[in-house]
Amino acid sequence: MRYLIVFAHPEPRSLNGHLLRRGVAALKAAGHEVVVSDLYAMGFKAVADGRDFPERDIGARLVYHAESGAAYAGGSQAPEVAAEQAKLLAADAVVLHFPLWWFGMPAILKGWVDRVFATGFAIGVPKPGTRQWLRYGEGNLAGRRAMIACTTGGRAPQYGARGVHGPIRDILFPINHGMLFYTGMTVIEPFIGYRVVRASTTEADALADAYAARLLGMFDAPPIAYRSENGGAYDEEQRLAPEYGEGEGFSLHEG
Amino acid sequence: MRYLIVFAHPEPRSLNGHLLRRGVAALKAAGHEVVVSDLYAMGFKAVADGRDFPERDIGARLVYHAESGAAYAGGSQAPEVAAEQAKLLAADAVVLHFPLWWFGMPAILKGWVDRVFATGFAIGVPKPGTRQWLRYGEGNLAGRRAMIACTTGGRAPQYGARGVHGPIRDILFPINHGMLFYTGMTVIEPFIGYRVVRASTTEADALADAYAARLLGMFDAPPIAYRSENGGAYDEEQRLAPEYGEGEGFSLHEG
Repeated sequence: MRYLIVFAHPEPRSLNGHLLRRGVAALKAAGHEVVVSDLYAMGFKAVADGRDFPERDIGARLVYHAESGAAYAGGSQAPEVAAEQAKLLAADAVVLHFPLWWFGMPAILKGWVDRVFATGFAIGVPKPGTRQWLRYGEGNLAGRRAMIACTTGGRAPQYGARGVHGPIRDILFPINHGMLFYTGMTVIEPFIGYRVVRASTTEADALADAYAARLLGMFDAPPIAYRSENGGAYDEEQRLAPEYGEGEGFSLHEG
Repeated sequence: MRYLIVFAHPEPRSLNGHLLRRGVAALKAAGHEVVVSDLYAMGFKAVADGRDFPERDIGARLVYHAESGAAYAGGSQAPEVAAEQAKLLAADAVVLHFPLWWFGMPAILKGWVDRVFATGFAIGVPKPGTRQWLRYGEGNLAGRRAMIACTTGGRAPQYGARGVHGPIRDILFPINHGMLFYTGMTVIEPFIGYRVVRASTTEADALADAYAARLLGMFDAPPIAYRSENGGAYDEEQRLAPEYGEGEGFSLHEG
């Protein structure tokens, strides 16, 4: 299989760098192809702005999502944006690998999403013959498996059901559901390394083994059972119909 | 009062730019001082990396949070980071104003948090005489009011209790609770403009009036009643004790 790992850590000699190298080695040893987008090493431009559209009229008012759609349709995107899209299309499995900073992605990875998930590619894709969008379970990245791999400074109980930071599942929902499933990918449970700032060498190696196993098992792991937007569970205002679960919140959107 | 508005939109002629100008004008007309950190106009460096620490040994392994703490303590931070911290300390009210992109902040604003919320300033602040941290209701930014002002492309029902994107309150929890309340600030309900891509001039002006009113009312608005970490509700593993609400999830952390 072909794996794309999008990696966002500033220090190759970090624990995350160790995990990456060990994960890539394990995948290659098993005969898989691996492409790594090492965003820091690439100097990936994080900020979505008018310079993303080399052919635009720089005097015109910038409407980013519209300009993104025009550039995608017209083949005039920034080269590094088109290159990342091609990597996504070529992949069978997509991994976002990052340290959790302030309960989200490092800015360089958020910027990768802001720029690469272009209008017409990842959002704003009409479903032919309908008034619906291809999103949340359908879209150009359907058929691919996706997984978050992240590390935290805090301990696991702080990210548990009653932990002060909130449940890790909810913290990652905007990525798992709002980015990965949104574009059609099949999302599996995240790989999480807690409290890594205190990891010993032995612990780091155990974590690397666990990460390698999760990468190798991506196609066998049960998906998070998010509900397809166009599968009948949502009404015309994209609200979950009453018969599909009670209450409110992120967890409603899992079947 | 002194307001700091951190603004993250690439186009001044956008609806968000209109809201910003009208909000600032209303605050000034009422006699308040206003400082705007217009991150795009400033060309704010979004990516947290080793260049944030001009005095570090560039051959050494970068541990960002540790280097951040050393630079903060030693007065050797990047000048624009120290300047933003000074603006925060000088403010009575802090507003994060941005378009919601992929269910989070634009990368330039996430990078502002990643870099400006330094170790020793916003995180890793010990509570003297205890083994606790000053965070979640305590910290260097205590005494300040904070509010998110954001706009969405999607319609309000999609962000409601059963909407497909998830409740906006939960989407914003990592910012409201995990960044603003974490550093000690008193957080009030966000100002949200839904479906702004379709706004007419009349609608844009009505939204600007509403925004101005919310800015002017920041000190009278009831806070979101997040629970203080060191206030007795959390156990030694920072889990909410059983007598404080049932179940799990972000909403537990409101009293």
